[in-house]
Amino acid sequence: MALKRKDEMKMETLKSTLETIGGLDAEAMQQAQAHIDQLTKPPGSLGKLEQLAIRLAGMTGRFPLAERTKAIVVMAGDHGVCEEGVSAFPQEVTPQMVLNFLHGGAAVNVLGRHVGADVICVDIGVKGEVAHERLWRRKIRPGTGNMALGPAMTREEAVAAIETGIEVVRQLAAQGYGVFATGEMGIGNTTPSAAMLSVLGGLPPEQTVGRGTGIGDEALARKRLVVERAIALNKPDADDPIDVLAKVGGLEIAGLIGVVLGAASCRCPVVIDGYIATVAALAACRLHPPANAFIVASHLSEEPGHRAALQLLGAEPMLLLNMRLGEGTGAALAMSLLDAAVKIANEMATFESAGVSK
Amino acid sequence: MALKRKDEMKMETLKSTLETIGGLDAEAMQQAQAHIDQLTKPPGSLGKLEQLAIRLAGMTGRFPLAERTKAIVVMAGDHGVCEEGVSAFPQEVTPQMVLNFLHGGAAVNVLGRHVGADVICVDIGVKGEVAHERLWRRKIRPGTGNMALGPAMTREEAVAAIETGIEVVRQLAAQGYGVFATGEMGIGNTTPSAAMLSVLGGLPPEQTVGRGTGIGDEALARKRLVVERAIALNKPDADDPIDVLAKVGGLEIAGLIGVVLGAASCRCPVVIDGYIATVAALAACRLHPPANAFIVASHLSEEPGHRAALQLLGAEPMLLLNMRLGEGTGAALAMSLLDAAVKIANEMATFESAGVSK
Repeated sequence: MALKRKDEMKMETLKSTLETIGGLDAEAMQQAQAHIDQLTKPPGSLGKLEQLAIRLAGMTGRFPLAERTKAIVVMAGDHGVCEEGVSAFPQEVTPQMVLNFLHGGAAVNVLGRHVGADVICVDIGVKGEVAHERLWRRKIRPGTGNMALGPAMTREEAVAAIETGIEVVRQLAAQGYGVFATGEMGIGNTTPSAAMLSVLGGLPPEQTVGRGTGIGDEALARKRLVVERAIALNKPDADDPIDVLAKVGGLEIAGLIGVVLGAASCRCPVVIDGYIATVAALAACRLHPPANAFIVASHLSEEPGHRAALQLLGAEPMLLLNMRLGEGTGAALAMSLLDAAVKIANEMATFESAGVSK
Repeated sequence: MALKRKDEMKMETLKSTLETIGGLDAEAMQQAQAHIDQLTKPPGSLGKLEQLAIRLAGMTGRFPLAERTKAIVVMAGDHGVCEEGVSAFPQEVTPQMVLNFLHGGAAVNVLGRHVGADVICVDIGVKGEVAHERLWRRKIRPGTGNMALGPAMTREEAVAAIETGIEVVRQLAAQGYGVFATGEMGIGNTTPSAAMLSVLGGLPPEQTVGRGTGIGDEALARKRLVVERAIALNKPDADDPIDVLAKVGGLEIAGLIGVVLGAASCRCPVVIDGYIATVAALAACRLHPPANAFIVASHLSEEPGHRAALQLLGAEPMLLLNMRLGEGTGAALAMSLLDAAVKIANEMATFESAGVSK
């Protein structure tokens, strides 16, 4: 829907990906529903776990469900808007944390190991070089431009970053991964997320700008002004998600849009993390609404705009942990709930097999 | 606080258990807090996971935290009030489901295996006999009396059932279990839970009576009247939790009060499941408020009274899954979050070790 004619020649991967995203398989969903209604529990009493199992059947087109290898894709990028003093941490923390991910010491690594998911770290736009054999080097440019002074990136760069996300997921799917989660690292990235949500959701910065990693009142007021100024200056077109992304977004946000679209095109579930990931998922669905069926919301973040972003997406969180870290930490935990849903559908006794009165 | 003088001679286990429940270890909590603040994340950004890790240090009196073997204790009992037509399922389902638990086919078994917890099934008051080598046979009486016609049980039976729960946990702790979750099975048991909550919370039945396993409008209206009648007839003393339990409670609810008190006395966390378990936990804390520090809330159930019960307990759920099955299913899933909290505290890199700017 939202691809502009001017893009068509230069975005083959994106275009062909959107074309392959189809709807859920109604027959597999009916099969799942019929089986789940035979299990030893009151109908519907496992709530979202049952709904997830049914959706998974619809995504994969199969029932019984298979347990699938899990990947958390952490997209890392930097933000020119950090010049405006919008974050509690210095920009050098982005590459430092990328190394931390690669060494397995960050929260997302711990939680990934806990749920049995691999963490895949992609440099899609870190300012400065990170050297590590396990890093996926896919840098589009070393950080965005300062959106308070001009567009964050060009439209071509935005499309290339989305396509990078798609290609990473395609490659992982080819390696056997079948469940994806979105992770991100990028000092300052709640600022472009807030700007994108303000434009895509028609919401004032008061509702979309929060404290991120923990800024004080003065920086919060500045952050709001910066978002306001970036929107007023760049005039992103709310009906053109790629324009919004290019003008007031970020490279890792673009990468996550690609992860969502790539997973949907592979008919795999994609678990979205917190604020940044939900804004990316919203942009992905504005670009191509059928992608929504493959999205699984994870937690409700402390970042105040997250609730609005989830509502715009029509998604309900499963975890209420007052988290506000990002990295994919909430999505990692929710991946375990997805596994639980699969096991419920596959392993529970039926009324008949257990001899329980219905 | 709430033990009456008349009980003192005949409730040695309960009395001595309450005496051993102490507060959290402030020094271990400070140690945990100091370490967690060095980990590579903004302070507090892992929300409830951090708070859980700190509380676990306070409960166990140690930091670093140990990963501990997990037991879900499923207390099973029947309810005379089923005569009034308050449930969607016939009473024979209680023993049938107990066998299902013992054969590993119920939802709590699947989720227990998923999180690495053992399911311990206790017959504390099933009507009819269940024969299985893994069943813990601790029957106080074969189901309660119909509370719409008289007290559910005697005060002595209520105390004995609480003490049974305490002893089961003590025995499991001696076997090496260090984290407990409450589970229950008892057709009809949302009715006594609603009655107990109405009395303990001073709430009208409209706020405490829900559809349980899925009754229709007519049965719902009847269930409300039954709760009203049982309270009017038996006149339970809101300031005497054992009186409330005996008159309008249930044997498995008593057992769960014991599980909560037993876990607290062993300085172990106890993860409470849904509506029935939360009412039991509330009664346990009314009996002895320091027990509250050892309680971990799991999910918010669809049963409408659950939110009020959690609020009275001052507890916040971590999972929003629209579940209403009981058995310990929500608590099982939350046990995995407890494990995640332990691993976060123990396995994450510090700013110094990872070379990340603070």
